[in-house]
Amino acid sequence: MAQGRTATLPTTVREVRKLCRANLWDAPTSGVAPGYLQANLIVLPAEFAPDFEILCARNTVPCPLLAISKAPGDFTNFQSRMPGIADSQIAFGLDIRHDLPRYNVYKDGVLVADHIDSLEKHWDPKDHVAFLIGCSFSFEDALTKAGLPPAHIARDCTVPMYRTKIPLCPAGAFTGSKYVVSMRYYHESEVSLVRDVTRRFIATHGEPIAWGWDSLETLGITNIDRPDWGDPPVIADDSVVVRSVEEHKTDGIVPVFWGCGVTPQEAVMKARIPGIVMGHAPGHMLVMDVKEADVFRPS
Amino acid sequence: MAQGRTATLPTTVREVRKLCRANLWDAPTSGVAPGYLQANLIVLPAEFAPDFEILCARNTVPCPLLAISKAPGDFTNFQSRMPGIADSQIAFGLDIRHDLPRYNVYKDGVLVADHIDSLEKHWDPKDHVAFLIGCSFSFEDALTKAGLPPAHIARDCTVPMYRTKIPLCPAGAFTGSKYVVSMRYYHESEVSLVRDVTRRFIATHGEPIAWGWDSLETLGITNIDRPDWGDPPVIADDSVVVRSVEEHKTDGIVPVFWGCGVTPQEAVMKARIPGIVMGHAPGHMLVMDVKEADVFRPS
Repeated sequence: MAQGRTATLPTTVREVRKLCRANLWDAPTSGVAPGYLQANLIVLPAEFAPDFEILCARNTVPCPLLAISKAPGDFTNFQSRMPGIADSQIAFGLDIRHDLPRYNVYKDGVLVADHIDSLEKHWDPKDHVAFLIGCSFSFEDALTKAGLPPAHIARDCTVPMYRTKIPLCPAGAFTGSKYVVSMRYYHESEVSLVRDVTRRFIATHGEPIAWGWDSLETLGITNIDRPDWGDPPVIADDSVVVRSVEEHKTDGIVPVFWGCGVTPQEAVMKARIPGIVMGHAPGHMLVMDVKEADVFRPS
Repeated sequence: MAQGRTATLPTTVREVRKLCRANLWDAPTSGVAPGYLQANLIVLPAEFAPDFEILCARNTVPCPLLAISKAPGDFTNFQSRMPGIADSQIAFGLDIRHDLPRYNVYKDGVLVADHIDSLEKHWDPKDHVAFLIGCSFSFEDALTKAGLPPAHIARDCTVPMYRTKIPLCPAGAFTGSKYVVSMRYYHESEVSLVRDVTRRFIATHGEPIAWGWDSLETLGITNIDRPDWGDPPVIADDSVVVRSVEEHKTDGIVPVFWGCGVTPQEAVMKARIPGIVMGHAPGHMLVMDVKEADVFRPS
C-alpha cells in the first residue's frame, strides 16, 4: 500500500484525490501539486459547528477557515470562505470521507482510529459538519522560491511545533485553548524578508507571530529542542549534528514562529467534544482545486 | 456649543451626522440612535494602510474592520467589510472629515489637536485612508435588553479599559502591540448568559475574551481599580461607595473582559507612524446607516 512517495507523484490535484479515494495513496501531501492550496480537516457534530465557526473568525491566524459543509451530513458540497473563490471551485466531485490520504477519529475526546483510509463508517449523514482550515504549505513554498527554504524540508524532517501560553479568544464551547506555533530557524538578517514574503498568505497563517530569542519567554516555550509535535529543530547545514542554543545565538540564528494548524485540533480536544470528531492524519491534507495565485494577492 | 446631551436627542442617524457637520453636536454618541451601528475611526497615510488592514484581519476581536476608504484621499466612498452590507448602505452622503462629533490628530505619533470639530485642514486629499472599526455599543445595548445592563452605564461612568500582556499578531509596520480590554463586573452566575448574549456580535468584539479573578494574571492586570483608560470599575448598586476586591469575591462578583476598540489606536501609536494620523475623540463615534439587525444574526 505504500504508494505515494515511492510511486511517481501525481501531476493533477484531481488525480491525487482519485488515488486517495481508491486507497492507492497513503503518504503525506507535502510537496504534492505545488501552486495549489491544501487544507487541514476537522469534522464535528453539528451542535458544535456554530461555536467552532466563531472560534475560527476570532482566531484567524492559527485557525484560518477556508470552507465549511453546506449542511450537516453533506460530504460533497462546501461553502467557500475564501474571498473571490466560488463554492464550485473548491474541489470538483469531492467526497470528504475518502479524498484525503489518511484520517484520525476521536470518540468523546479519545483517539479510537488513526491513519485509516476512509471516514465512511464513522460519518453521520445527518449530523457531521466538516471544516477546511488553511495550512502552512503555501507560505513554505513561497519562502523556498524566495531563496529562504525552511531547513526542515531540506533535511526531510517535520516542522517543530510547540504549545504556547498565548490564549485563543474563546467561542462558546471552545474555551481555555492556547496558540500552537510552528518554528523555522532563520538568520536574524533574513527575518524582515521572511516576514515580507509570508505576509500576504493571510488564509494560511500569514506572517510570523513572533521571532527572536526573547519571544520564547513571551510564548512560554521553555526548551526549543523539545517540541510538542514534529522533530527537534534543524538548520540547513547538515554537517552540523548537534547545535546548542548558545551556538545559534553566536551565529545570529533566531527562531521564527508562525500560527499553526494544530491549534484548532487542540481546541477541539481541549473542549472535550462528546461524540465522534474526525480529522486528517497529520501531514495528510486535502489537496484542493484552488490555485494559491487566486487566493493570495501578489506582494 | 454644548448641544448634544442637553438638546433633544436626534431621532435619525442622518440627523446626527448633519448636526456634526454643522458643528452643532459635540457630545459622545453613547445611547444615540439605538439599533444602529457605530464605528471607531482611524485615518492613516496610504503607505501604512495595507499593513493596518492585515493587522485587523489577524486580530479580529480587538480590531474588527467594518469599512475602509475606497481610495487614498476619498472621504466619502467606503468599501464595506460587513457581510451582507453593500458599500452604499454604510452612511449616505458621508464626509468622514466632518460627520463625527469630535476628532483627535497626531503628528509623528504626538497628539497635536484634540476634540476638534473637523479634520478638513489636516486631511491629505491624495494620501489619507480612513478605517471604520466596530465598537462595543452594540453588545452593551443587547446586554441591557437581556436584563444584564453594564453597571458603568447605569452609574454614568466610562467603562474601565486596561492594557494587557496578550500580544497582537503583528502585521508589517505594526509590531509589539498588545490587547487592550474593557471590563464589566457581573455575578459569576451571569457569566454564561453574558457570553451567550454577546457571542453573535462578531463585528463588534463579540463575547468576552476572559472572565473570573484568575484572568487578571493571564491578562497581566495588576490593579483592577486602576484602569489605563476610563473610570475605575463600579457595580450597579450605587449605595456602595468603595468596594474592595475581597468584598466582590465574597459576593461572587467577577470581572469580565472584552477586546476593546482602543487596541488599534494603541497599535498605531506603538508603531510610531510618521506624518498625520487621525481618529475620533474617545466616545465620539461615527453613527452609521447600518442597522445592527442586518449585521448580527439572531442568537
